[in-house]
Amino acid sequence: MKIAIAQIRVLSENCKQNFETMKSYIELALGQKANLIVFPEMSLPGYFNGDIWEQNSFLRECEFYNNKISELSKEIDIIFGSVGIDWKRKNEDGRVRKYNAVFHAQNGHFQINKKSNYPFWIKALMPNYKEFDDSRYFFDLRKLAFERRCKVIDLYEPISLKVEKKKIKVGVTVCEDGWSQDYDISPFKIYSSRYKHDFFVNLSCSPFTRGKQEKRENIFSKECVKNKIQIFYVNCVGIQNIGKTVFGFDGSSSFYNSVGDVIHLCGFFTEKLSVIDFDFAKKDVINNEKIKCLKTVSLVEETQKSLEYIIQKCLEEWKINRVVIGASGGIDSALSAVIFSRILGPENVYLVNMPSKFNSHLTINAAKKLAENLGCPYASVGIEESINLSVEQLENLKFINAAVQPQMTKLVFENIQARDRGGRILAALAQSLGAVFSCNANKTELSVGYSTLYGDQAGFLCPLADLWKHDVYSLAYFYNEIIYKMPVIPRETLDVIPSAELSAEQNVLENKGDPLIYNYHDFLFRSWVEHWERKTPEDCLNAYVVGTLENMIGCEKGLVRKLFPTVQDFIRDLERWWLNFVESGVIKRMQAPPVIAISPRAYGFDLREHIRKVVFTHTYMNLKKKLID
Amino acid sequence: MKIAIAQIRVLSENCKQNFETMKSYIELALGQKANLIVFPEMSLPGYFNGDIWEQNSFLRECEFYNNKISELSKEIDIIFGSVGIDWKRKNEDGRVRKYNAVFHAQNGHFQINKKSNYPFWIKALMPNYKEFDDSRYFFDLRKLAFERRCKVIDLYEPISLKVEKKKIKVGVTVCEDGWSQDYDISPFKIYSSRYKHDFFVNLSCSPFTRGKQEKRENIFSKECVKNKIQIFYVNCVGIQNIGKTVFGFDGSSSFYNSVGDVIHLCGFFTEKLSVIDFDFAKKDVINNEKIKCLKTVSLVEETQKSLEYIIQKCLEEWKINRVVIGASGGIDSALSAVIFSRILGPENVYLVNMPSKFNSHLTINAAKKLAENLGCPYASVGIEESINLSVEQLENLKFINAAVQPQMTKLVFENIQARDRGGRILAALAQSLGAVFSCNANKTELSVGYSTLYGDQAGFLCPLADLWKHDVYSLAYFYNEIIYKMPVIPRETLDVIPSAELSAEQNVLENKGDPLIYNYHDFLFRSWVEHWERKTPEDCLNAYVVGTLENMIGCEKGLVRKLFPTVQDFIRDLERWWLNFVESGVIKRMQAPPVIAISPRAYGFDLREHIRKVVFTHTYMNLKKKLID
Repeated sequence: MKIAIAQIRVLSENCKQNFETMKSYIELALGQKANLIVFPEMSLPGYFNGDIWEQNSFLRECEFYNNKISELSKEIDIIFGSVGIDWKRKNEDGRVRKYNAVFHAQNGHFQINKKSNYPFWIKALMPNYKEFDDSRYFFDLRKLAFERRCKVIDLYEPISLKVEKKKIKVGVTVCEDGWSQDYDISPFKIYSSRYKHDFFVNLSCSPFTRGKQEKRENIFSKECVKNKIQIFYVNCVGIQNIGKTVFGFDGSSSFYNSVGDVIHLCGFFTEKLSVIDFDFAKKDVINNEKIKCLKTVSLVEETQKSLEYIIQKCLEEWKINRVVIGASGGIDSALSAVIFSRILGPENVYLVNMPSKFNSHLTINAAKKLAENLGCPYASVGIEESINLSVEQLENLKFINAAVQPQMTKLVFENIQARDRGGRILAALAQSLGAVFSCNANKTELSVGYSTLYGDQAGFLCPLADLWKHDVYSLAYFYNEIIYKMPVIPRETLDVIPSAELSAEQNVLENKGDPLIYNYHDFLFRSWVEHWERKTPEDCLNAYVVGTLENMIGCEKGLVRKLFPTVQDFIRDLERWWLNFVESGVIKRMQAPPVIAISPRAYGFDLREHIRKVVFTHTYMNLKKKLID
Repeated sequence: MKIAIAQIRVLSENCKQNFETMKSYIELALGQKANLIVFPEMSLPGYFNGDIWEQNSFLRECEFYNNKISELSKEIDIIFGSVGIDWKRKNEDGRVRKYNAVFHAQNGHFQINKKSNYPFWIKALMPNYKEFDDSRYFFDLRKLAFERRCKVIDLYEPISLKVEKKKIKVGVTVCEDGWSQDYDISPFKIYSSRYKHDFFVNLSCSPFTRGKQEKRENIFSKECVKNKIQIFYVNCVGIQNIGKTVFGFDGSSSFYNSVGDVIHLCGFFTEKLSVIDFDFAKKDVINNEKIKCLKTVSLVEETQKSLEYIIQKCLEEWKINRVVIGASGGIDSALSAVIFSRILGPENVYLVNMPSKFNSHLTINAAKKLAENLGCPYASVGIEESINLSVEQLENLKFINAAVQPQMTKLVFENIQARDRGGRILAALAQSLGAVFSCNANKTELSVGYSTLYGDQAGFLCPLADLWKHDVYSLAYFYNEIIYKMPVIPRETLDVIPSAELSAEQNVLENKGDPLIYNYHDFLFRSWVEHWERKTPEDCLNAYVVGTLENMIGCEKGLVRKLFPTVQDFIRDLERWWLNFVESGVIKRMQAPPVIAISPRAYGFDLREHIRKVVFTHTYMNLKKKLID
């Protein structure tokens, strides 16, 4: 039997375009005499569609194209993911009943699941964490079982195919159904315990994050071995966003056999139709293609590949072909320039340096050199005159009938500079070039709001916002050493101390820079955001006391005592940055541009935050009191 | 029996402060010899806490203060809402098991629910729509029943009290449990069918939206009549936010008897302890206080009261006591100035007018007059010099190695002006005054991105972003006529055509203003956002064709044909604004400041949006083709 695995690029909301893609893949599969083609979860309507699931006209559009797919099944069985609609029943929000469903089209018609009596198979397990909001939109198989006062298994039967007069039973699961370790049922287990399946399919729309492929293979392999089953795992590629966070989908569609082997079928971040022979006797597939998989590349290469893929698709879908970058001579804007140049061609990446009297020749020259190395258009425009005007206007401004008058402070002056660059020059410049401009904030800065709103925090996208500062350096070195094999990012940029250069206190020539100690704070902040059990000052202070902090956060051994000779020093730093993380950090993130997600936990709408004031736990306060008194 | 209903102000995340509040209410109730005190849902930890539910140190903090509440129950029974934690079990995301729960403390200890064997009662119905994400954080009673392979009712029993040797049975429900019309179980129904209750409590943390109180009373009255029960509905006050949207809680705690009467106990938007006598024979309460309720005030008064309450609490919790407003002489900034003046005192609301050559004397004078009328500090600072400098710099800027050079267009020039005011002056000015500045965008503008990012779209908060332009006018008239009984908002401001005054084409003296036709577009856009079945161009064009559009969107009769003599005109306008709503509107909203929610559907994270390009449905395209050909 020939099975076609269609690792297609799915667009959110665009049923018509997804239908066209699916149609062309079906034709390809027919050309290769496939008996069955399998598409990913929600391949027709897209998955991260926000609240447009509430628009009935969108649901009718989905139904229309669902039906058009079924018409294509005259010579091939088609299994695909889409929304299943029951217009007569309600979701728990009172709107039309929607299921995250799998359709099976055969001989021009949808097959009925005789147990549920729907023309589709229903996802049982609903992820409601991180970027996922399945229960917001979809009614699940467990709820349906509850409603019908029956068991989940009673609503399930395998999909039936007939291939060369042999009856084939295909087990159906959708994405999270395969990740059942924290749920009270395992669909693979219960389905395979009642029915004998020839193989299972798992239709996924599973976003990429670094290191996920390893976990995925681990989980699906184990299910196969445990339940003595075979699984075709079919994931999509492309990007979809949840407003403030953009996710890539890496595909990595694979076949898992019952002894735990993984046969990679379609590769990562690439559209592909893979037609393979399934051997019923061996319950295995024959595939001699050497497919590269994410598990086998280094972390920095995974970062480079995923970042470039996601940003490229972003620009394509948002119809952006020219980007302006404020090139400071520092590492973040340089890395940003490299990435955009690789995607759009350097001729479409406009670098502009905007010096004030605080910018050193070192960084100014580095910015220019970067443009030369990459071949980007380059310009320089000073901000001195404009910031002087702003300062003068502010100092001369007198409110009548007022108790206080404006006071120019160091911080006000620094922010004026940052906003002059971002909000005044870059925004106008980008628009006057028919372009957009990029926000080059990294995750470390974004964590603690070390940026100016409407200044360096502005832009159409934060391409680097899911990279810690040390990731930024690793990737920069990777481009120089491995990709370009020459220092396109100038040595000065790599060697200079990271600095905002907004005052004499941030003079890089005197080796004065940011207040962040990246080899420590990167790891501390990461424990607050990305750790599965998210750490807080209570956890950090506890770990500091018992000497396990470095181990807990994963930074260099011996660093903490070196940086903070006394407990007072440690606490002062901890509270300073926690305050920034919780208070101004959140406020700035709420108005920050969308973030490209590649880590296990990205800002935007993956991590859901609320505006608040710091509240330390009583345990923290007691411990602190004990340590300081 | 004396029952104390504690309509307290709940702070998100702040267990310690909520504990102190609860403690003081318990003491008050003891002073009034109450037998029982009832607090709202999640009164101890707060409800909209974002993903801090993932911090185990926060959970331990909740447990610590839960236990401290139980210690206060030696002379009074305490029922309160908090998180119930089962450290040995997991939520479906793999994290610690958490329940949205009700605790009953008696004689210094928590009582055990013998059916579930937990020291708390568990919420059964989980809202997962609009601002609610209950399933993201909490395991519910239905899932627990599924896990234990039993029925929901088998995990339930009433709370038992002893008052004057009489055994009292209290039914326990939490917020959504009472709004069961779209769920497959009704807790009131199944609980009351198995057990005889003396009365029910419903502990809520139910955000205010306009018109909600009517629905609430309707639903709870019906439950009482239908099931022959009595309910104490206990809701909190205060504000809580979900990051980009701030909600107020109106309290409106009430007693519902079994014949459908509503006895208002605590009023709206006010902290109050109401101690009432429950008469077991009559199954009713005696309450002679005249409590004003939201249902009885006009829509505009409801808007005024709720907006002032929510913004006041926002400023208080965020520790803001001075606000800068860019006063243009237009209606939005004027209304904003009035509201902030009422909350902070006019002496703390700094109005600054920032004219260019396009601003008329009419609006400039109106801004000054507003400041005089209110008694606000006032200043004027021109932007002419600065925008000239920006234009000059941009025009002289030449990129080397570039295919295109910056082109100054009308739109670029308009946006430079807007950003000069918001991103350059207001941001610096606010900071130099130790203040924040306000974004005065209304919902109509925000819907279609009729604003400039980092310009008039900037600020710490959008106080008016949930008001359509006609709501802005209604509220402005209400302040002048009813509250101040004098034109604090100058007549000129009310009479002038709404205009951004960014070009000669927007000259108000020639009656040229915004491209929006507010008496139509307000209603059109509302149908896209706030209607229960959210409308799209397909619905609108269909309704236009059959002549029901005005009825559907709720605008003035006869308006559509007057505005759009031909179907081409209608479609051109429809597509223009839908494009803005879906594309640039979303992009701008992603970076907009937080919104104060008062409508049934607010921007921010109430309406969840994704960045996208317009896709029209095939039905729309076919209809359009038919109409235009």
